[in-house]
Amino acid sequence: MAGVTGGEKTIDLRSDTVTRPTPGMRSAMAEAPVGDDVFGEDPTVERLERHVAGVLGKEAALYAPSGTMTNQIGVMVNTARADEILLHETSHIFNYEGGAPALLSGVQARQLSGEAGIISPDTLRAAVPPENIHFARPALLCLENTHNVSGGRIFPLQDFAAVAAEAHGLGLRVHLDSARLFNAAVATGVPASEWAEHADTVSVCSSKGLGAPVGSLLAGSEETIREARRARKALGGGMRQAGMIAAGSLYAFEHHVGRLAEDHARARRLAEGLAESGYEAMPPQTNIVLVRAERPADLTQALQREGVLVTPGGSGYVRLCTHLDVDDGDIEAAIRAAGRAVARSA
Amino acid sequence: MAGVTGGEKTIDLRSDTVTRPTPGMRSAMAEAPVGDDVFGEDPTVERLERHVAGVLGKEAALYAPSGTMTNQIGVMVNTARADEILLHETSHIFNYEGGAPALLSGVQARQLSGEAGIISPDTLRAAVPPENIHFARPALLCLENTHNVSGGRIFPLQDFAAVAAEAHGLGLRVHLDSARLFNAAVATGVPASEWAEHADTVSVCSSKGLGAPVGSLLAGSEETIREARRARKALGGGMRQAGMIAAGSLYAFEHHVGRLAEDHARARRLAEGLAESGYEAMPPQTNIVLVRAERPADLTQALQREGVLVTPGGSGYVRLCTHLDVDDGDIEAAIRAAGRAVARSA
Amino acid sequence: MAGVTGGEKTIDLRSDTVTRPTPGMRSAMAEAPVGDDVFGEDPTVERLERHVAGVLGKEAALYAPSGTMTNQIGVMVNTARADEILLHETSHIFNYEGGAPALLSGVQARQLSGEAGIISPDTLRAAVPPENIHFARPALLCLENTHNVSGGRIFPLQDFAAVAAEAHGLGLRVHLDSARLFNAAVATGVPASEWAEHADTVSVCSSKGLGAPVGSLLAGSEETIREARRARKALGGGMRQAGMIAAGSLYAFEHHVGRLAEDHARARRLAEGLAESGYEAMPPQTNIVLVRAERPADLTQALQREGVLVTPGGSGYVRLCTHLDVDDGDIEAAIRAAGRAVARSA
Amino acid sequence: MAGVTGGEKTIDLRSDTVTRPTPGMRSAMAEAPVGDDVFGEDPTVERLERHVAGVLGKEAALYAPSGTMTNQIGVMVNTARADEILLHETSHIFNYEGGAPALLSGVQARQLSGEAGIISPDTLRAAVPPENIHFARPALLCLENTHNVSGGRIFPLQDFAAVAAEAHGLGLRVHLDSARLFNAAVATGVPASEWAEHADTVSVCSSKGLGAPVGSLLAGSEETIREARRARKALGGGMRQAGMIAAGSLYAFEHHVGRLAEDHARARRLAEGLAESGYEAMPPQTNIVLVRAERPADLTQALQREGVLVTPGGSGYVRLCTHLDVDDGDIEAAIRAAGRAVARSA
Repeated sequence: MAGVTGGEKTIDLRSDTVTRPTPGMRSAMAEAPVGDDVFGEDPTVERLERHVAGVLGKEAALYAPSGTMTNQIGVMVNTARADEILLHETSHIFNYEGGAPALLSGVQARQLSGEAGIISPDTLRAAVPPENIHFARPALLCLENTHNVSGGRIFPLQDFAAVAAEAHGLGLRVHLDSARLFNAAVATGVPASEWAEHADTVSVCSSKGLGAPVGSLLAGSEETIREARRARKALGGGMRQAGMIAAGSLYAFEHHVGRLAEDHARARRLAEGLAESGYEAMPPQTNIVLVRAERPADLTQALQREGVLVTPGGSGYVRLCTHLDVDDGDIEAAIRAAGRAVARSA
Repeated sequence: MAGVTGGEKTIDLRSDTVTRPTPGMRSAMAEAPVGDDVFGEDPTVERLERHVAGVLGKEAALYAPSGTMTNQIGVMVNTARADEILLHETSHIFNYEGGAPALLSGVQARQLSGEAGIISPDTLRAAVPPENIHFARPALLCLENTHNVSGGRIFPLQDFAAVAAEAHGLGLRVHLDSARLFNAAVATGVPASEWAEHADTVSVCSSKGLGAPVGSLLAGSEETIREARRARKALGGGMRQAGMIAAGSLYAFEHHVGRLAEDHARARRLAEGLAESGYEAMPPQTNIVLVRAERPADLTQALQREGVLVTPGGSGYVRLCTHLDVDDGDIEAAIRAAGRAVARSA
Repeated sequence: MAGVTGGEKTIDLRSDTVTRPTPGMRSAMAEAPVGDDVFGEDPTVERLERHVAGVLGKEAALYAPSGTMTNQIGVMVNTARADEILLHETSHIFNYEGGAPALLSGVQARQLSGEAGIISPDTLRAAVPPENIHFARPALLCLENTHNVSGGRIFPLQDFAAVAAEAHGLGLRVHLDSARLFNAAVATGVPASEWAEHADTVSVCSSKGLGAPVGSLLAGSEETIREARRARKALGGGMRQAGMIAAGSLYAFEHHVGRLAEDHARARRLAEGLAESGYEAMPPQTNIVLVRAERPADLTQALQREGVLVTPGGSGYVRLCTHLDVDDGDIEAAIRAAGRAVARSA
Repeated sequence: MAGVTGGEKTIDLRSDTVTRPTPGMRSAMAEAPVGDDVFGEDPTVERLERHVAGVLGKEAALYAPSGTMTNQIGVMVNTARADEILLHETSHIFNYEGGAPALLSGVQARQLSGEAGIISPDTLRAAVPPENIHFARPALLCLENTHNVSGGRIFPLQDFAAVAAEAHGLGLRVHLDSARLFNAAVATGVPASEWAEHADTVSVCSSKGLGAPVGSLLAGSEETIREARRARKALGGGMRQAGMIAAGSLYAFEHHVGRLAEDHARARRLAEGLAESGYEAMPPQTNIVLVRAERPADLTQALQREGVLVTPGGSGYVRLCTHLDVDDGDIEAAIRAAGRAVARSA
């Protein structure tokens, strides 16, 4: 929970990025052995990078301050300037990273469509032109799992493998933006590495559902990660005694993956409870609940008055996230609050 | 016409870019007074730039070697790095200019949809987000008239004015890619300046339908064109005694605008003739005829065997262009050739 | 000290970036109140940004993961693409930041010369050309204080003010790369804000001499820092519960500035001690000692064998830094070790 | 000559870029067979590209509208983003091309020093750092022959071969900016191909001394030129019936190379004549005469009053160029005019 308003708790369901480090995580951070990571001497960062590479089945991984940075390094190491990247029209890389693919890598982004962030092999094939000097050179397909904007929807492994195979067959590389990959893994029982296997680079976050305060990793081949380390330096992502923060990320990977199942159960309960009050709530696959709203800003405000913070979406939805700082009681309280909001507006 | 195959003329309808300078144009070029235009001393270039600025109702214009360059300078002078430009998903600037907006200007391109290259005010408004550090900053709307991919369709002036007004209201600037603006003007009787009035920068070509061998112009305010001159230098578009070429462009603007009506009449006749042979030909608004084809490459080849060159489109169409080097006889010959192709495939 | 080799301590004088958080700093970090800083809700980050803005006499400041990032954001917010920045040929921004000014901002760097990183008004004036489309547009002068490569030399305030005034007179903005500004302030008694006053943007580090594990800040006007916040997002420098790290930086600014005087005294003692053993050591102004060496790599190795880590410079020097993790005993031990290295090579 | 002022001819010695096409060249242009070069169908462009590739001993060449474009394409095809290029501090690529290496290619330019634009192997070696993530990756050495700013000085073949070999040994590629390569070849009797042999890409101009109105070429391996063709498209350098202009360039290469010897003889006579009048004129190696002047702008004005146009240099010189439009009589007239200017100022 996120605060107290007039004697009652405010319940912050805006995003799973709002979680705060737990006491155990704070201790791990406070006691972390550190060194100068720009010199490659921080033992905690090294341990974290090895851990994540292992979990994802990749040769190497690189720690960076944000998922935006690991995504953008992924774009950079998989392309040359004037290349084209192909991604879903609602993808995070295109919509929420400040225009970075063009700014940092000089690459053009082609937006593809598809249900819930999923790009089909046919859609991809139709979008990749033959070699011709008029066309930016297609170089990279970016996929997202789970898909943020559609409410944490999972990219089914089989569909994922199929479009990645199509991309590789067309000579493209594949980057997986998977800030919430472990939500997909826990929800399906499919190990994270099975998605990662089909991608050349994979970005995962230790903040968001896993609850670390800061930190994302990019995983890939040793050669790719060597290049990524250069790119991180130029972007200003090289940090000195990064082990202090990396310890929180390591703690998150070691202690908070399994518990994502609780967030998913709470999201389902939240959706049910909202439906009972008359809300049109999408049944969640992971930890994000979308609720239809004609005027998202109005509903956001109405819920805030009742002590529940949510995020208004661009197109007819508000978003509610369950996360480490929200327990069963908070969910029930949120459901009651949403009921009051309906009553008041009636 | 473009050549001779086995005793019979080949008729080249691939594009209006294939035209060759007429004897009159060649003379004008051979006799052009010239100077060093990088020093601002070429009288023919100056005359051309003043002429085009005048026709478009703008304060100034700048000569450059191609429409790609005038478009990309238009993108550059109307944006800052990390901005977002908004354009139609089938626009030339996004699809046929080698990824230049990202490469040269570091801007991200958001693809919008709409019939025949037309973007509605509603579509635009929905695509422009509020100020937020997550979003590339929307800065420029790029429109295209006539619209190449849809078969030379005209952007109706009223629709154009409406979406440009919406853009300006949202704080965006407007660039008009109008390689074939005079086709629209001649076909509708609306002066080119009436479209140009709603745009901050306008790119027009003297090659294509107007028949000059080389050269495009960017028109806008004096201040914008001063910046454009800097950008042209860095892009390598500054040319020394450019008057030799500019003379051809000037000749084209002075002698070949009115005659575009003939190209349009021939395109209509071509579409009718093809329809009579069983082709599904879109009735043309200007000088481009689209013919539906399940396998565009096959139809292209079949017509080539009969001596008619056309361009296969990406999605179920072949494209035929009328232009300065095609006369009534060529059109009738092309219709007959297309009939033979049908007969042969039956 | 940095480790133990065969029973004896290794003394790490390579850089002041190798310091590790003190117990007090670790506690402050472990207990820091945090929030989601991307939403502007982290109270510790806010406190840190206000503190640093205040110390530097600027309206606002922005926290970022590294000095490279604050420098590059400084370059970005003070320039437009195709501009020229002017800086010293030995500056950190040009030499040690991975080519970032060209990569991220599309700006050209003109290298100027001058003793100890100092650029004179005359040198600057001679390097700034008149407006002409052939020339990249001069936009920004980058200065460095203290100057790393020359051994932590201080940019005298009067010289600094003079060249900054010249720059402003020429229409340029001024960015101050001052990873070690507080070394200059403590060594001279001149408040940091007196240098900052002459610069439009100022980058300071909490790592390096101040001993925090991670973190730098960019200070400037409110408008500039608002733009900087956008740039930070696109570069991937936005961090969630950054307060955990920021608490270390805040602790460093509040507790470790005054004690830099000890580092300086130790650096002077180190230089004297080395001179007594026959080394040609430059008398230090702050915390960096340069020792002349015909073959820097050889001397580096010889000292390492005796348990002292130093950094070989490019051009005839090795560099030794004093810092938070080095005490008087370490300095005396380092002097003895250096003496042994001389004896052994004799 | 360039015009008439009050009954007397003005003699334009500002640059060899001011020449105007001769009647023979104009005829060649007027009659040139052409096609759509963007489709690779212009026979004149093809002939020109083959001719220049042959003269330079390279596999292929590419026609473009300016030397700035061929230089910048050379930079682009020989580097990846965030690379470093090394060049002379007075080079054209760094100083007169609008900051294009950073803008277009995202590469950083390191400025080296050396007499008359010459970079020695030692200077180069000292400037290339070892592999390290802090450093932009050194990728390309750019050399210039003849060297514009030093007065058309020739890069001696042996020195050129030595530094190019050093560059290749260090893993760099070599680009030769040789707008005036044929001046060097004619002055020394060394074929242009002998310099070209040591470079990966070579840019030559048909304007300047060779007298064509427009056009430069980039030569290199087939693979490199294929990439160059893509780059030219994105930069807006693809031109349709470019044969009209290319014919002028071809004429220049076929008819105007040998006659550069006349320009050189006239430049020597000009320098002698000026010296006789008391000017401090550098003895020219090719077609550029530098005359020392305390106030270059004043001398430029004084000579202009006497009907001689020259270019004031940045640092104590004015520049005079001989070229196709200046004959022996013009030179004698210029010498007399310069004498009058001396007399008047005495």
